Amino acid sequence: MSGNTVSLGDYLFTRFKQQDVLSIFGLPGDFNLSLLDHVYNVEGMKWVGNTNELNSGYAADGYSRVKGLAALITTFGVGELSALAAVGGSYAEHVGMVHIVGVPSISAQQEQLLLHHTLGNGDFAAFERMSANISHSVHHVTGVEDAAQSIDAAIQAAYINQRPVYLTIPANLSEIELCAKRLATPLDMSLPDNDSDAEDEVIERVSKMLQAAQKPILLVDACASRHSCIEETAELAKLVNFPVFLTPMGKGAFDEQNKRYGGVYVGSLSSPEVSEVVDNADLVLSVGGLMSDFNTGSFSYGYTTKNIIELHSDYTKIKSSSYAKVGMKQLFPKLLKSLAPIAQDLMAKEFINVIPPKQVATPVIPGSTIYQKWLWTRLGSFFRKGDIVVTETGTSAFGIVQTKFATGVTGISQVLWGSIGFSVGAAMGAVMASEELDLSRRVILFVGDGSLQLTVTEISTMVRWGLKPYLFFLNNDGYTIERLIHGENASYNDIHPWKNSRILDVFNAKEGEHEAIQVSTTDELDNLLSDPAFNKNDKIRSIEVFLPKMDAPENLVKQAQFSSSVNSA
Amino acid sequence: MSGNTVSLGDYLFTRFKQQDVLSIFGLPGDFNLSLLDHVYNVEGMKWVGNTNELNSGYAADGYSRVKGLAALITTFGVGELSALAAVGGSYAEHVGMVHIVGVPSISAQQEQLLLHHTLGNGDFAAFERMSANISHSVHHVTGVEDAAQSIDAAIQAAYINQRPVYLTIPANLSEIELCAKRLATPLDMSLPDNDSDAEDEVIERVSKMLQAAQKPILLVDACASRHSCIEETAELAKLVNFPVFLTPMGKGAFDEQNKRYGGVYVGSLSSPEVSEVVDNADLVLSVGGLMSDFNTGSFSYGYTTKNIIELHSDYTKIKSSSYAKVGMKQLFPKLLKSLAPIAQDLMAKEFINVIPPKQVATPVIPGSTIYQKWLWTRLGSFFRKGDIVVTETGTSAFGIVQTKFATGVTGISQVLWGSIGFSVGAAMGAVMASEELDLSRRVILFVGDGSLQLTVTEISTMVRWGLKPYLFFLNNDGYTIERLIHGENASYNDIHPWKNSRILDVFNAKEGEHEAIQVSTTDELDNLLSDPAFNKNDKIRSIEVFLPKMDAPENLVKQAQFSSSVNSA
Repeated sequence: MSGNTVSLGDYLFTRFKQQDVLSIFGLPGDFNLSLLDHVYNVEGMKWVGNTNELNSGYAADGYSRVKGLAALITTFGVGELSALAAVGGSYAEHVGMVHIVGVPSISAQQEQLLLHHTLGNGDFAAFERMSANISHSVHHVTGVEDAAQSIDAAIQAAYINQRPVYLTIPANLSEIELCAKRLATPLDMSLPDNDSDAEDEVIERVSKMLQAAQKPILLVDACASRHSCIEETAELAKLVNFPVFLTPMGKGAFDEQNKRYGGVYVGSLSSPEVSEVVDNADLVLSVGGLMSDFNTGSFSYGYTTKNIIELHSDYTKIKSSSYAKVGMKQLFPKLLKSLAPIAQDLMAKEFINVIPPKQVATPVIPGSTIYQKWLWTRLGSFFRKGDIVVTETGTSAFGIVQTKFATGVTGISQVLWGSIGFSVGAAMGAVMASEELDLSRRVILFVGDGSLQLTVTEISTMVRWGLKPYLFFLNNDGYTIERLIHGENASYNDIHPWKNSRILDVFNAKEGEHEAIQVSTTDELDNLLSDPAFNKNDKIRSIEVFLPKMDAPENLVKQAQFSSSVNSA
Repeated sequence: MSGNTVSLGDYLFTRFKQQDVLSIFGLPGDFNLSLLDHVYNVEGMKWVGNTNELNSGYAADGYSRVKGLAALITTFGVGELSALAAVGGSYAEHVGMVHIVGVPSISAQQEQLLLHHTLGNGDFAAFERMSANISHSVHHVTGVEDAAQSIDAAIQAAYINQRPVYLTIPANLSEIELCAKRLATPLDMSLPDNDSDAEDEVIERVSKMLQAAQKPILLVDACASRHSCIEETAELAKLVNFPVFLTPMGKGAFDEQNKRYGGVYVGSLSSPEVSEVVDNADLVLSVGGLMSDFNTGSFSYGYTTKNIIELHSDYTKIKSSSYAKVGMKQLFPKLLKSLAPIAQDLMAKEFINVIPPKQVATPVIPGSTIYQKWLWTRLGSFFRKGDIVVTETGTSAFGIVQTKFATGVTGISQVLWGSIGFSVGAAMGAVMASEELDLSRRVILFVGDGSLQLTVTEISTMVRWGLKPYLFFLNNDGYTIERLIHGENASYNDIHPWKNSRILDVFNAKEGEHEAIQVSTTDELDNLLSDPAFNKNDKIRSIEVFLPKMDAPENLVKQAQFSSSVNSA
């Protein structure tokens, strides 16, 4: 920044800094290099430098799930396409991200030069057309006239809609000078106003339905956390006094230690205690619902009531009527205020007392095999406030459903998109974000030996930055989740085994700054998890846990049967 | 296959076997699992099982560059999007590949179920729309009526056009029974006939121009090998007796030991001896031209003649006139026949005698640093007939241009698309293909320490299959090609250093079946390359070569200056 003007690059990264987005993920490429020069002009900003673009996309996703927004920079064609599977996941799962692509200069595009990183057919718009399918919106910088506005609009859209947006910046424009004054006004990140008539009608109807209900429940799902409504949901639960249930994707969006918390609802895969209450409810108040197959026990929701209130990020549904312009984040303040007068009445009602989720015994027998059931239950007492628990699609994302979270534990998994390998990249981004917030927060990754192979190199980025996550490698000899669905003994579900305990070493983790542990019995793992030294996140650790090949969490076994039958129907 | 019918899966893999495509690349996913069951029903077929989809795409590309066609199988959404950067490269560089995607059942798609691996918005066509941008054509299996025809059409289109095609197969259809009789007739893989009037005109004009020329040259480029015209080109060269030059992407498409071979033409980046002849030619006969920036010294072709004949896969251009339906593969037999009568005359002409490309001295001084110039020249005498040399976009793809290939050496690099990391995956596929053809053929990979980090895990797949490539890791401490373009000392061009000599070990290469070598002086490398034991490809080897950080092949230094100025123009 020099006086009245600021370079485009400095402008961009200053805008991210204002949103507390301090880490920029991605890889260098010749169409973005000059833009990257500017990262270091803005104090406190850092260029992460991932090991490949797919991983950088997952990392940006993980970062955004912790901090609410992320920035990803790739290069034209080769770089951006490599990241699409990650960006698609962010789109599906409501994760805010600006995907910035360094593109050839406008003149090179207009002349349709047969540049490297192109398809060789002069079609410079192909990659943008591809990304548009998995982006909330597409934004371009084409010159000094639209640069600031395009950048601002992209950042606002990504945050407000919690989706990826696509922003192109030509390679020759990162140095152009923009008016600096605009930076003095922080971006308006407020959500669009609700339609106030519709909002009033919603509040009136909701209030009446809540008062009339005899056996109501509150069901908290993914978008409660994805759209930053965790606090509002807690307040709502307090006011209405309903029994509260989480979905698998909702884990972390409500305090599982709360006395009104009843467990995880996964349709017909739920425990009988949970099904009993939810399926017989006479009112379901749903916050941030995301009804995907793996999140709902393959759409097996069993409640018979027609009294359903759904609060979503951009609409509200009451019974059969939809209110297009009533988003929950904007609705909550008025709704909570309107409920205050009736909270006393609701508190007096004798709603069903929930039975706290049953805890499975975790006996420690020296030399005994570790089973998934034991593992996920035992982990409950390892987790503590502030922990961020990242689980991979596979036994982990299903297993974690049975783990009771301590207050203030955050869960990250990708239940809807379900791209294997996601968790390693996401953990990289999450630990970067958590260290920016509070060094004492721990990031704990659970990834199977199969999924690990897709994105293992992102552990190198963790080592590079001196990050200190816990990396649990669950070694059950291949793709167990696939074996359960189809082909138990098929060789396509086998993987080539690695020496996983040497991964930190090959990525050059320094002596004394890392630890590679292997455990195969309950006593070994129990001792480890109880060890105060192990509990302090003062180094990067890999913990390889050996588990039986076909052992899996019960909900995964049932889900796999569903999937198998859907695929052959 | 049972009597009159055959399952769809068996049909598919039988068709590939008939084309000698014996390895199927990709990863399992629940929408393709039942299809994968059928790989092993067809004798001689194998499922490779790569470490991630991007790598599997690169591997399929490398396989196809050796065998002419490849098959890649991924799963809906998450899997297929991960492979797009590889498929885009195959499209840009004319590589034939069938990308088969296991998709949800037609009924699930019609009901717009909120399945995992979807965007959660009921849009099941998004991924197909994305792939269509980088595919020659899109094909669907929707039932027993269209299954065989769709499969056949996809394989034919991929091979004939040497481009990727996209083929969807619903998860529930791999077992449906098709009429087996169709398999008795092998697919017609012949190219579409040329327009015979146009062809006659082309032949007449070409013949006259060749006879009139005094200082003609023959320029051989990428598509000569991509569209299987290497033999025809050799025959053409013999008949016309012109001096012959290769482009960087043409390396391997003409015998560099031929006495009429004059060197590599890269526009203004060529050696003076090459420029002198090419730029002053009065006729340029071009075979398989692909005029991308890195292939032409940033479009700096210097010849002034307007007598240019371009033979392309799907059209011919003579001076300013284009013949849309005259493809070179079909044209060659007639053209060569028509030239036979004038060959004597041409032979009698005193066309310019080419000066064989100058060989740089490679003195071996004990303890002396290895420079790129030394390296690429010295390698010339290491390569031998049958070798497949895979080079990465970076110092390798530029350095290899100065290496004189022995007769029968095949070169693989990705000069147009230029996706870093490509070479490791491509080498995996190439070595699989070469072993299917002839066990004694060697595959020799050159990859920088930076690019290696993107796709290193594919080395695990090589270990898994007991393949025996040479893996040269050129360690020059980061992204040297990027440093040359912009940001020599910028930290975004640094990488986190790995213990590269332990990579084979961590991927579980067995004792005695692998070798990890490190060399940093000319005498060490010279001794190694001269060692008969090292020359025998009887184990997998990594050879880490330490090179100075900013040392680069001269043509790369100049190219980088061009790129840098284009990006800031």
